[in-house]
Amino acid sequence: MSFIPSADSDFPIQNIPVGVYRAKGTNNPGKLATRIGDKVVDLATLVELGHLKGTHLSDGSAFKQSTLNAFMGMGKAAWSEFRSVISGLFTEGSATSLQNSDDLAKCLIDASEVEMLLPASIGDYTDFYASRYHATNLGIMFRGVDNALQPNWLHLPVGYHGRSSSVVVSGTNLHRPRGQTKAEDAPPAHTPCRLVDFELELGIFVGKGNDLGHPVDIKTADEHIFGFVLMNDWSARDIQKWEYVPLGPFGGKNWGTSISPWVIMREALEPFMQNGPDQSDPQVLPYLQEQQPSAYNIDLKVHLQNETDIKEPQLISHTNYNTMYWSPRQMIAHHSVTGCNMRPGDLMGSGTISGPEPANYGSMIELCWKGTKPLQLAGGAERKFLKDGDEVVITGACHGDGYRIGFGECRGRILPVVE
Amino acid sequence: MSFIPSADSDFPIQNIPVGVYRAKGTNNPGKLATRIGDKVVDLATLVELGHLKGTHLSDGSAFKQSTLNAFMGMGKAAWSEFRSVISGLFTEGSATSLQNSDDLAKCLIDASEVEMLLPASIGDYTDFYASRYHATNLGIMFRGVDNALQPNWLHLPVGYHGRSSSVVVSGTNLHRPRGQTKAEDAPPAHTPCRLVDFELELGIFVGKGNDLGHPVDIKTADEHIFGFVLMNDWSARDIQKWEYVPLGPFGGKNWGTSISPWVIMREALEPFMQNGPDQSDPQVLPYLQEQQPSAYNIDLKVHLQNETDIKEPQLISHTNYNTMYWSPRQMIAHHSVTGCNMRPGDLMGSGTISGPEPANYGSMIELCWKGTKPLQLAGGAERKFLKDGDEVVITGACHGDGYRIGFGECRGRILPVVE
Ligand SMILES: [Ca+2]
Ligand SMILES: [Ca+2]
Ligand SMILES: [Mg+2]
Ligand SMILES: [Mg+2]
Ligand code: NI
Repeated sequence: MSFIPSADSDFPIQNIPVGVYRAKGTNNPGKLATRIGDKVVDLATLVELGHLKGTHLSDGSAFKQSTLNAFMGMGKAAWSEFRSVISGLFTEGSATSLQNSDDLAKCLIDASEVEMLLPASIGDYTDFYASRYHATNLGIMFRGVDNALQPNWLHLPVGYHGRSSSVVVSGTNLHRPRGQTKAEDAPPAHTPCRLVDFELELGIFVGKGNDLGHPVDIKTADEHIFGFVLMNDWSARDIQKWEYVPLGPFGGKNWGTSISPWVIMREALEPFMQNGPDQSDPQVLPYLQEQQPSAYNIDLKVHLQNETDIKEPQLISHTNYNTMYWSPRQMIAHHSVTGCNMRPGDLMGSGTISGPEPANYGSMIELCWKGTKPLQLAGGAERKFLKDGDEVVITGACHGDGYRIGFGECRGRILPVVE
Repeated sequence: MSFIPSADSDFPIQNIPVGVYRAKGTNNPGKLATRIGDKVVDLATLVELGHLKGTHLSDGSAFKQSTLNAFMGMGKAAWSEFRSVISGLFTEGSATSLQNSDDLAKCLIDASEVEMLLPASIGDYTDFYASRYHATNLGIMFRGVDNALQPNWLHLPVGYHGRSSSVVVSGTNLHRPRGQTKAEDAPPAHTPCRLVDFELELGIFVGKGNDLGHPVDIKTADEHIFGFVLMNDWSARDIQKWEYVPLGPFGGKNWGTSISPWVIMREALEPFMQNGPDQSDPQVLPYLQEQQPSAYNIDLKVHLQNETDIKEPQLISHTNYNTMYWSPRQMIAHHSVTGCNMRPGDLMGSGTISGPEPANYGSMIELCWKGTKPLQLAGGAERKFLKDGDEVVITGACHGDGYRIGFGECRGRILPVVE
């Protein structure tokens, strides 16, 4: 247990997330931090005071950067050692505990005094489509129940390259986009998006990179998985519908993708790993075969609120990441199978996380079934897609024995279209 | 005329391309340069000697970086002033000419003594599909002549997000990729790609960026177009075919994209602008309407060679960038219409540049018509797609009166698959 109060917090000493912060209201460059309870712990200060040292941590310069990329690239041994050093420093009664040190005050900041920035410089962002429930739901809506899954879907984790410039940190509000849309029996028009949606996803940060031409073996893919964030892949359904054949989503997706600021490291999630889905019918190819538990038991919720008609946040989706068909290791193996190089700080989206029941669906298009079943909310509010002022808040946690590994939140509001 | 010999060169004083070089065989960080004839001109040295100054050039620190991103972000007035200062320094008899200056030798390096690096740190790479001939050819092959163009194609410049990590500079050889492919009537398999192709394209570097949520007006889009390079969008047709429905090309494209190292600035190409295609049937939407000449008259060639059976480079495609339907300004306007932010150094591919006749086709899949008409080459060699050892060399130039604005070359060889 930590001497920093963190009972009933997303961030007990078992978590040790990493992120980038600055003092609220400043334009300072970001600084690296971890978090325990309501305290942000400055990592550069820990290095300077000589507390953050280890065989695999080199001279600690990775912790003096303004993004996590260098640390992400250091590999599993360094990540693990970092966690164990931090755990020692902030655990009550440990040999290296800072509890009674004068240095303690120098490295702690109240979480209320900081603002969080993007954790990494994201070289490339790729979005997958790994939930069988989600892919099936969309397939039924657009192609009918007999052709719901495309022929390739059970053979490979379908994904597409996304836009990294517009990945934003939780709390960034986004204007409703305009774009080219086409109503049936009308010519295409340049209009505000009428079908703004969210997609509940997890974001996976790449750790160690691989060289161009040299694929990652699924057996060693964990070296390349640094950690996880909550993600909202905002989507403009009407823009997407008109543009996406044959080269995939473009403007429908590139106007914003929100992520939570604290990266939960893979090792913190290991106690919550479970067996993945049966993938023997059809049998997946050897380069994609998992040899070990591959599913993560992460409880996920989406709340919706709006100052006008949804004053109290209302739970609109509740699901679990362990419902996914394709795992993060499989994504890495498939992404790099052609020799594609991945770099520390690259981001992969899981794809919309939908479970089997309507209450588990991870997007408005599924929740309102393409507009045919408006969502009825307490207080009489009703939604098909998102209205201006709607704020979507994603939260998530792994529930351990007497503690939880929380993800914080991924929050964003839809602002009116720019005139 | 320059006092540096540059007659019959791709790089006369009218060109003034920019790029990043280092001394051959070193691991030095890159330095910015321009080029005249066979001489590379070091820009940081020009700044240090006090020769590269101007109202819009600030303190010249943009020229002391190891990538062009900062200069690209400075905008049109700075780009234009840079060209006029460089022109003055190296023109015979001009007021600021360095011809008789002791400083001249300090800033010139023989092109043979340098190797060229990627010109920019590419935040995002987007590939378009802007040739009506190319889109029609592929449509005929895969859907038949009656449905060749998709319904959206004449209404918007179709594009998709690509992979920036694997954009490489000319001269980088690439291993034939492996990936998941599916032969008809056989289950999917993990195989070497059997249908390796090239795509003749131009790459367009973004200059000034735009803020998230704030689209670029087509009338001011030239501010956002820094310059052009030759590009080869290597493609694995069998991998692409199996994966691309419904989210677009992924592993079929992410194993490498080659670009030429010298960026030809937009202003150098202005004398070669022509009227674009008629876009009145159907009429394009106002946000995409061009008000000024939008086509670039750039002559483009592709040569193929192989040490075993194609010892002399053979011309396999000859076309012109002025055959494209969608212009670079239209790409910028459409890319940002949703509010998507673009950053200096982002790269856009034009899409395969195919002209009306078979000799003008810009990819093997068109040249051999999906494998049905093997390409017959001098000396008896034959090709459908690319063989190991095949080297593709793209060249291009605008032909002026007594001079040409050349693009140098974009070269790359297919190496055997990694065992
Ligand atoms: Ca998504
Ligand atoms: Ca292409
Ligand atoms: Mg998105
Ligand atoms: Mg490519
Ligand atoms: Ni290699």
